[in-house]
Amino acid sequence: MSILVVGSIAFDSVETPFGKVKEVLGGSASYFSIAASFFANVRLVAVVGEDFPQEHLDFFQEKGVDLQGLQRLPGLTFRWEGKYGQNINERQTLSTCLNVFEVFQPEIPEQYRSSQYVFLANIDPDLQLKVLKQVNAPKLTVGDTMNFYIEGNLSGVKESLRAMDIMTINEEEVKQLTGETNLVRAAKKILSFGPKTVIIKRGEYGALMLSRDSIFSVPAYPLETVCDPTGAGDSFAGGFLGYLARNRKCDDKSLRKAVIFGSVMASFCVEDFSLNRLKSLSYSEIEKRFGEFKELTKF
Amino acid sequence: MSILVVGSIAFDSVETPFGKVKEVLGGSASYFSIAASFFANVRLVAVVGEDFPQEHLDFFQEKGVDLQGLQRLPGLTFRWEGKYGQNINERQTLSTCLNVFEVFQPEIPEQYRSSQYVFLANIDPDLQLKVLKQVNAPKLTVGDTMNFYIEGNLSGVKESLRAMDIMTINEEEVKQLTGETNLVRAAKKILSFGPKTVIIKRGEYGALMLSRDSIFSVPAYPLETVCDPTGAGDSFAGGFLGYLARNRKCDDKSLRKAVIFGSVMASFCVEDFSLNRLKSLSYSEIEKRFGEFKELTKF
Repeated sequence: MSILVVGSIAFDSVETPFGKVKEVLGGSASYFSIAASFFANVRLVAVVGEDFPQEHLDFFQEKGVDLQGLQRLPGLTFRWEGKYGQNINERQTLSTCLNVFEVFQPEIPEQYRSSQYVFLANIDPDLQLKVLKQVNAPKLTVGDTMNFYIEGNLSGVKESLRAMDIMTINEEEVKQLTGETNLVRAAKKILSFGPKTVIIKRGEYGALMLSRDSIFSVPAYPLETVCDPTGAGDSFAGGFLGYLARNRKCDDKSLRKAVIFGSVMASFCVEDFSLNRLKSLSYSEIEKRFGEFKELTKF
Repeated sequence: MSILVVGSIAFDSVETPFGKVKEVLGGSASYFSIAASFFANVRLVAVVGEDFPQEHLDFFQEKGVDLQGLQRLPGLTFRWEGKYGQNINERQTLSTCLNVFEVFQPEIPEQYRSSQYVFLANIDPDLQLKVLKQVNAPKLTVGDTMNFYIEGNLSGVKESLRAMDIMTINEEEVKQLTGETNLVRAAKKILSFGPKTVIIKRGEYGALMLSRDSIFSVPAYPLETVCDPTGAGDSFAGGFLGYLARNRKCDDKSLRKAVIFGSVMASFCVEDFSLNRLKSLSYSEIEKRFGEFKELTKF
């Protein structure tokens, strides 16, 4: 089964207590599509500038990511610069240059329109809705958002939410979006906006998934070194939706296993800068870590 | 099997977003012994002042807690006053009046000295060591500490740690004690100080247990209302050690189940102020919630 993803591709400059990288491959659509590529075919809709190197295109293609929906516009690729402190959960954005991403209008190629699985990464909610207008009744739509849009386009976020089957959102953002400090109440409020399921990403604390009649919680994989948390949430979404697309089932049992595969991909992502760890990753390593999650949580 | 607990009994005055209580029963030994009393016989060593009412003594005795080790000294019982904000994880201590607790010298009654299970609640580490000198080779010694002693008596904390089989400690304190921001590294450092196992209590995020050859992590029970978090850590320890004492086994499988029973008791504790929820609790409710933890985490 194929997954359509619409999101950003960026050059990230990141400093963490473990090092510093400059203009490396990043962006929500990059992390999502590479993580998902271990499970299913991925169709990428995003935009890059004239400065985007062939090397990265080759990387996507090696992983089987379909690039027919990738636009190349005059100008520079989106750039983001950030820094993480000793407390690796605290991120400071140093600069954001949207560049070609500012004028991004997602065009879904004809052959992508029947995609059964859709991931709307954290782009403007109005663009998320435009994407959904261009696809024929997908089996499952998963979406994300971020503080920037909650602050700047709350009505858009809520409208987009109504069109999602599953929302993934991080802990601070769900509190901001719902005005609730208690996560269970916040999650229930999200369900009242439309989605059937909400997954709250809690970084080093794991993930909480809530539906109308089920609640599932999993701790994060305990790592001794978190090199760079950038992209963990999108890698989670890639593993999550990738697993669901491969297995073609969306029942509670499948959703729970998908959350674990999401957590597995996020745990690999943060072991190195950029997509480096996902680049060297094998499927047998993914299966091994899935087994470690079983060991970690069984009683 | 009997459990010996040495710790504090206090009158707590607490304000949370859900209400306010004045001079209610509190203290580490109170929460621990009531939580543990659902599983095993508890022998309490603590101190109260002349103002401690018969009503509370009756409550302990109804729950089968042995009070032969309870000292009553001239003066007032330990008092603590605190406030929790909208973020229920942030606690502000408004006042601490040690009163009779300041001169507390734990005396272990002859008939307690053969106790097989010992819990050293967060009293001064020098007193923890004095307790251990008065008991004959217990099967299992579990201990706690707190920021106050880590700041004021670090060498004492480390010496006391050497004598514990299992340490329970909260997330901020383990970082403070080890100087490590990463929990896995922090936990390993604790093991290097002596204990065979460390359990890190993470409040609304659950608990992480680490031994030399096993790591176990469990999320917290997702509650819609956390009325008052006071005593959650000691209730956790009570459920944890209570289960182990009842089952007389300390293998990895038993430790994992014990962590769940600890989490169950902590989740009930925070549903109301003081020990109110534990007062009305039945064992069938405990079993039911244990089952809910299975549902919550299974995949």
